[in-house]
Amino acid sequence: MTIRALVWGENIHEQKNKVVGELYPEGMHGQIAKLLGEDGEISTATAVLQDPDHGLTDEVLAQTDVLLWWGHADHAAVRDDIVEKVARRVYEGMGLIVLHSGHFSKIFKKLMGTPCGLKWREAGERERIWVVNPRHPIARGLPEHFEIEYEEMYGEPFSVPEPLETVFISWFQGGEVFRSGLTYRRGAGNIFYFRPGHETYPTYFEPMVGKVLRNAVHWAHNSDAAYTAIHDAPNVPVGATLEPIEERGPKLHADGEEGFR
Amino acid sequence: MTIRALVWGENIHEQKNKVVGELYPEGMHGQIAKLLGEDGEISTATAVLQDPDHGLTDEVLAQTDVLLWWGHADHAAVRDDIVEKVARRVYEGMGLIVLHSGHFSKIFKKLMGTPCGLKWREAGERERIWVVNPRHPIARGLPEHFEIEYEEMYGEPFSVPEPLETVFISWFQGGEVFRSGLTYRRGAGNIFYFRPGHETYPTYFEPMVGKVLRNAVHWAHNSDAAYTAIHDAPNVPVGATLEPIEERGPKLHADGEEGFR
Amino acid sequence: MTIRALVWGENIHEQKNKVVGELYPEGMHGQIAKLLGEDGEISTATAVLQDPDHGLTDEVLAQTDVLLWWGHADHAAVRDDIVEKVARRVYEGMGLIVLHSGHFSKIFKKLMGTPCGLKWREAGERERIWVVNPRHPIARGLPEHFEIEYEEMYGEPFSVPEPLETVFISWFQGGEVFRSGLTYRRGAGNIFYFRPGHETYPTYFEPMVGKVLRNAVHWAHNSDAAYTAIHDAPNVPVGATLEPIEERGPKLHADGEEGFR
Amino acid sequence: MTIRALVWGENIHEQKNKVVGELYPEGMHGQIAKLLGEDGEISTATAVLQDPDHGLTDEVLAQTDVLLWWGHADHAAVRDDIVEKVARRVYEGMGLIVLHSGHFSKIFKKLMGTPCGLKWREAGERERIWVVNPRHPIARGLPEHFEIEYEEMYGEPFSVPEPLETVFISWFQGGEVFRSGLTYRRGAGNIFYFRPGHETYPTYFEPMVGKVLRNAVHWAHNSDAAYTAIHDAPNVPVGATLEPIEERGPKLHADGEEGFR
Repeated sequence: MTIRALVWGENIHEQKNKVVGELYPEGMHGQIAKLLGEDGEISTATAVLQDPDHGLTDEVLAQTDVLLWWGHADHAAVRDDIVEKVARRVYEGMGLIVLHSGHFSKIFKKLMGTPCGLKWREAGERERIWVVNPRHPIARGLPEHFEIEYEEMYGEPFSVPEPLETVFISWFQGGEVFRSGLTYRRGAGNIFYFRPGHETYPTYFEPMVGKVLRNAVHWAHNSDAAYTAIHDAPNVPVGATLEPIEERGPKLHADGEEGFR
Repeated sequence: MTIRALVWGENIHEQKNKVVGELYPEGMHGQIAKLLGEDGEISTATAVLQDPDHGLTDEVLAQTDVLLWWGHADHAAVRDDIVEKVARRVYEGMGLIVLHSGHFSKIFKKLMGTPCGLKWREAGERERIWVVNPRHPIARGLPEHFEIEYEEMYGEPFSVPEPLETVFISWFQGGEVFRSGLTYRRGAGNIFYFRPGHETYPTYFEPMVGKVLRNAVHWAHNSDAAYTAIHDAPNVPVGATLEPIEERGPKLHADGEEGFR
Repeated sequence: MTIRALVWGENIHEQKNKVVGELYPEGMHGQIAKLLGEDGEISTATAVLQDPDHGLTDEVLAQTDVLLWWGHADHAAVRDDIVEKVARRVYEGMGLIVLHSGHFSKIFKKLMGTPCGLKWREAGERERIWVVNPRHPIARGLPEHFEIEYEEMYGEPFSVPEPLETVFISWFQGGEVFRSGLTYRRGAGNIFYFRPGHETYPTYFEPMVGKVLRNAVHWAHNSDAAYTAIHDAPNVPVGATLEPIEERGPKLHADGEEGFR
Repeated sequence: MTIRALVWGENIHEQKNKVVGELYPEGMHGQIAKLLGEDGEISTATAVLQDPDHGLTDEVLAQTDVLLWWGHADHAAVRDDIVEKVARRVYEGMGLIVLHSGHFSKIFKKLMGTPCGLKWREAGERERIWVVNPRHPIARGLPEHFEIEYEEMYGEPFSVPEPLETVFISWFQGGEVFRSGLTYRRGAGNIFYFRPGHETYPTYFEPMVGKVLRNAVHWAHNSDAAYTAIHDAPNVPVGATLEPIEERGPKLHADGEEGFR
């Protein structure tokens, strides 16, 4: 079965910053899509901030199995109603892979419920990514560790909730560590945060990074039908109980009435 | 050390609904505060929706160790800026205990990052609460199970993230089950959701419910200093690294510059 | 890719108890294997306590992707060295699905590190299994709840570690609840505990039970290579460090020497 | 309330190795006990491998609230029946703090259910311990990170189950990382693993290490009564159900009979 991945890119620095533009002439989203395209079971599309509705219309979201999110310079420009729609699709079972500076995106902060802050330093230092959960599907086929020679440092404490599982931890040359691969579930949606990917470095040309992203798309994919019932809070009328009960005591609500939200 | 608990009540049905008003003449918040007051190590105050700033000013929040939240009829009336402030204090270490219909409160949904929906039925049926995590601090001194003869049913699936620990699971007469006691951490803040507490029943006069709430206040209390650094995302300049590194590669930011948010 | 499942059955009550023998003439393992066989991607084999080495030789285990375990009457009869071998294969990535009274099997207790005790009652009462984690791969295609009309009751507290995720919770007619579907990882191995399956009832003829087991086999299957490095605790000699360090201070061990275990 | 801590030391290298003997003339256990003694709410005792029953008699264990465990050279010498007793007390609520090379102790492996392996290098390199969970009770009063100038390296992957919470992660000079502070619960017992503590270095003279250990003793302490019921698996007879049920279907067991184990 083909997994339909959508790579969302902010697409600002590619346009405004010479280094980034030269490094990623087809956009970071374009290069990330290329990495995914190496997997014959993944079909890829891209969308950018500047598209109408940021390229995230109901139709597009309904046909997306896994969304990858890269943003940095202007998280605030993402419309709140679109963020809400994306969150709803995650709850229904769309996978979400949040990349690097996407830790401060509206969608990630909304789904985590925490500030998602961290330390950082842009000095082109060496990052060594350790697999702490070998044979986790996201680490499939990886060596025990791999290095990215030039990267921005992200340092702990990373203010996110305790994950379901920690997959990667990074070592930085300057003395910091960071939980670089974390898994979550929100509703029916699988979420993976993956740290590397600063725009001034060729991170998305790294073979190991491509492998992680492809693995993550497979892991995040929920092949079951959309779980739309998650948006409801149904009243179960007394007449329809699974076991016989008699109605007792004072009531606020009439039978079958909708609850307060 | 005295733990400063603040019981927040929506205080609507106590005023508008005859049954609730007669059951809780001093407000549900008043009765919950009484339950906490049985513990000499807890000092209690109350605040209600109708107070200026809902009674949740910076001064009050700064002096609150653990906040208890009961709301139902008008979650939407809680101001967004106040919700934001409460969330900030939770991240800094204020404990939060969310009660019953507070599952749909803005603050709980924000901290969970999920819809927090569930099934429900108001039929005065029997709820039996099982301790599935004996000797968890919140279950301290409880029997293996206790019953609330008249309660509203809440049924699974409860769309919240996987908790740190499940403490209680409820059995309902009509055939449903519910995870009735769940723990979370968000930043430095401990969060406990506790299911029972429908306003038309005398749940907050139940001795076992009082015991759970007092235990939960102790558990949620973080005696360490407020963790205000959680609101920062500091740049670590190259000149101040813990290990010597040389700066390399292209940069977006000048040294010590603030990052994008 | 075909997943190679092995159903292990204790095969005692089928031989000694008339009711069980008539209900499961081909053994419980035989009937469970049939349920798995409805899935074209699963190939099944069976093994029983009475086989040489309980049917769990090195060759068999090396060719098993997912092992299902049903035992009850004589857990003690399972040889400790075989239990050790099974555990090693789980650490290397073999999936393990533990069924019903297998909660007290040596292999489950070893992998959990806890007593794995519970309450029980054999009264043919109704069990209603609620999906608390909709769209979890193990709940794929299931309704919100399903019932088993005649089952043994298992009641909380179930003394197992907090799971990665809780998938099912059971309601029992007699007033108890139980966490009926729990997931764990130990090393590279995925573990699922599934509650129903008392031998005097036709539980393994229930279509929903079959669906859960087939889903669980897919979920537990780790398609990556066996993670045999988990059995090592390698010394990393100073001359082979990833970053240059100078050796300093007093030492217990010569370079490259094996550590104490 | 005074917390009764017991520091268990293997006490081998202190006797056989000149460096260790000179560094810890009163034994490592003696020095660790001193660190705990700085807290007026902790009373400390010590026990060693060479004591009768390793100093872990029923009487001693019954009066121990939190046990700290340091061993390295001869884990195999610890008697299996004593390990079993210690595990039982953990299940009942005794806290357990496992130190450094104790990762390979029988008691830790038994409670984790995994190999507990890791990489290592004895080169006196710098370890920097980062607090990834600020304001966790075990990190109370700590700075964002602290250093131990001379330590043995432990590297990931560390084959333990996913913890309840990760408190510390270490950075090593030679390029590795390690989850240095992990929390677990097994039955009613709180368990903390803390990485540093190689015997040829003065780690247990580090003020920050002392602070962590004292915090951990407070965190691990379960002030509730011993949960001895965890060792039972009680039958609940039909006549004693919480809700009325009729007995149905075929049975293996007579009413109130003990189950198979």
